[in-house]
Amino acid sequence: MKLTIVRDEFLKGLSIASRAVASKSAIPVLNNLKIELNETGLFITGSNNDLTVQTMVPYNRDGKEIIRNYKEGATLINAKIITEIARRIDSLEITIDVIDSTIAIISDNRSEFKLNCIRAEEYPEVELRGSGTSLVFQNIEFTTLVNQTAFAASQKEQRPILTALNLEAGGGKLVATATDSARMARKTIDIDPGVSFVTNIPAKMMVEVVHLAENAPTIELIVSDKKAISSFGLTTIATRLLSGEYPNTKNIVPKALLYVLEVNAQDTIKAINRASLLSIERENVVNLSMSKNGVEISSKSSQIGSASEKIDVFKYEGGDLEVGFNNEFVLSAIRALGSTDVTIAFVGEMKPFVVRNDLDDSVIQVITPVRIF
Amino acid sequence: MKLTIVRDEFLKGLSIASRAVASKSAIPVLNNLKIELNETGLFITGSNNDLTVQTMVPYNRDGKEIIRNYKEGATLINAKIITEIARRIDSLEITIDVIDSTIAIISDNRSEFKLNCIRAEEYPEVELRGSGTSLVFQNIEFTTLVNQTAFAASQKEQRPILTALNLEAGGGKLVATATDSARMARKTIDIDPGVSFVTNIPAKMMVEVVHLAENAPTIELIVSDKKAISSFGLTTIATRLLSGEYPNTKNIVPKALLYVLEVNAQDTIKAINRASLLSIERENVVNLSMSKNGVEISSKSSQIGSASEKIDVFKYEGGDLEVGFNNEFVLSAIRALGSTDVTIAFVGEMKPFVVRNDLDDSVIQVITPVRIF
Repeated sequence: MKLTIVRDEFLKGLSIASRAVASKSAIPVLNNLKIELNETGLFITGSNNDLTVQTMVPYNRDGKEIIRNYKEGATLINAKIITEIARRIDSLEITIDVIDSTIAIISDNRSEFKLNCIRAEEYPEVELRGSGTSLVFQNIEFTTLVNQTAFAASQKEQRPILTALNLEAGGGKLVATATDSARMARKTIDIDPGVSFVTNIPAKMMVEVVHLAENAPTIELIVSDKKAISSFGLTTIATRLLSGEYPNTKNIVPKALLYVLEVNAQDTIKAINRASLLSIERENVVNLSMSKNGVEISSKSSQIGSASEKIDVFKYEGGDLEVGFNNEFVLSAIRALGSTDVTIAFVGEMKPFVVRNDLDDSVIQVITPVRIF
Repeated sequence: MKLTIVRDEFLKGLSIASRAVASKSAIPVLNNLKIELNETGLFITGSNNDLTVQTMVPYNRDGKEIIRNYKEGATLINAKIITEIARRIDSLEITIDVIDSTIAIISDNRSEFKLNCIRAEEYPEVELRGSGTSLVFQNIEFTTLVNQTAFAASQKEQRPILTALNLEAGGGKLVATATDSARMARKTIDIDPGVSFVTNIPAKMMVEVVHLAENAPTIELIVSDKKAISSFGLTTIATRLLSGEYPNTKNIVPKALLYVLEVNAQDTIKAINRASLLSIERENVVNLSMSKNGVEISSKSSQIGSASEKIDVFKYEGGDLEVGFNNEFVLSAIRALGSTDVTIAFVGEMKPFVVRNDLDDSVIQVITPVRIF
């Protein structure tokens, strides 16, 4: 295997594939990237066993030669080292020459690196061209779907199923749901009525796709029984699905909302941010109290002191109410809506409440309050 | 105590004084800032017992009113909380009202914070108007003196004296020396011939002065037996001196330099950065070999591989030599010189070597090599 490649293109490819490489993998071979040059281009693959990212650097792009002076072949090279080498080399091109499948010589006209490498055959088999149900999204559509929901998935591994973004396709709708059991985010978009599936994809993978697909016009998602594959531009990401039953979230969204506030999103974010400064002993707990005298956000620390502020309300329905909530949950729900104004609506002091945008009923955020006394 | 103060000015003052406050002090009262309004202005003081920073916000600046509606007084308020409050409030002004020396009400027209505070009398006595020998520096002169030397002081507390910047004034010269015993940096500048002292100031304090004095035209340093006080603009920093005898560094600078290289600083920094990628088992150790065939920087890892590159040399004196060194030491020495070209000069393979700028003999960097084989 041998090639001379434009440094920026090589570095970009290495950086993309490295997203899947763990900082220290329990499976030593996965500390490497698989680098394979075939008739299509240079394929670079990284994996942490759960998630695999593969990208391709073509021979030419827009009439510009990217790879020249080449001989096909494949090898495994330490992901961190090869990426750092490509980053620190400041020539326009880098030459890679793999000798006997055991040593890769990476060089420009200044520096020469001899890296021990591993035969490509030792890399685990990853199937990236799976069959299954396919959905093609516009980038903005996919990005919004993920950004408005994935943050509400659990970060903890105690109940792995809660780390998923639950996708239900059918009847011309795709419903994405994430919950960590204390809050839930749900987004619904229109899709081809012929598509139908239910699947649980790790929310992290969906976020990774959004991150890497930044400049791609469309994103394809292929869902099968065992895995999900996402493709955009010259990059493919595969992940194992989460097994187990996703909790029934159908009845979580409260119906009889007796207390309704409409507020400016940015002002409310700032007010909650300020009030949360004093939520020290009960970390992140902020109170909201509403009455005819106005709406107040407050927090209290017996050691340090208290914070309170009135927020301007455009619309107010219902009587007096006092609710405590995790300020991070409300902040991320408001931010996820991305709207100028938001509506916060309550059933009662210990019932889940809703954060929504009245101009967009495709997305809803539900948060369980925290007991205050 | 009561005042209404321009928010930006208050926040700036809090941020400056907070530089001295430890993230969690063993002496609880030092988690607070002392805030004192007297006839001169608002004095804000922070301390970690070793280092004290005091700054003043005046009543007026450039004809613009900064503090109004005031009543003199003093209190102690939690440093982190008051600084964060000032940061998150986005009004132009903040009002502070201290009631019974026990509660401070911080408010703008939106938010109100009630903070438990402590009587000012409980703050340790800090003498910031010390007498002693005074030196006044131009900012650039002081900044260069510190930046070219302080980085070479030890970060470790095993031998506290090595965390000092050693200053020797006398005969119209001020010599600043820092060493962590594996390297040494020394800078000499001209001063008033009448000034004479020897002192060991924590290098960290000197770096803090450079940081905080960014926009001050001049910096005064007052040295006494027990402490050093630095003043600039409306800010004063006091620190305890380090006791103990500073090691004799007079004879460390090698004289008979048999091998001399002159190289471009930036190219050499980049080459060392690249080569250091493979210094994995012996962390940070990079080799330099010079012979009639050229000068090469290299490193080697038995597991991963090796790196090598030739560097362009403008001047070359002496025969063949191979030296190993800590790449971080050489990189920081080259950077500290701040020159386009640098000279690296050796006595022999295990003797301290010199990194200097031939156009500026006020500064010299000496580094002990590392054994290679």
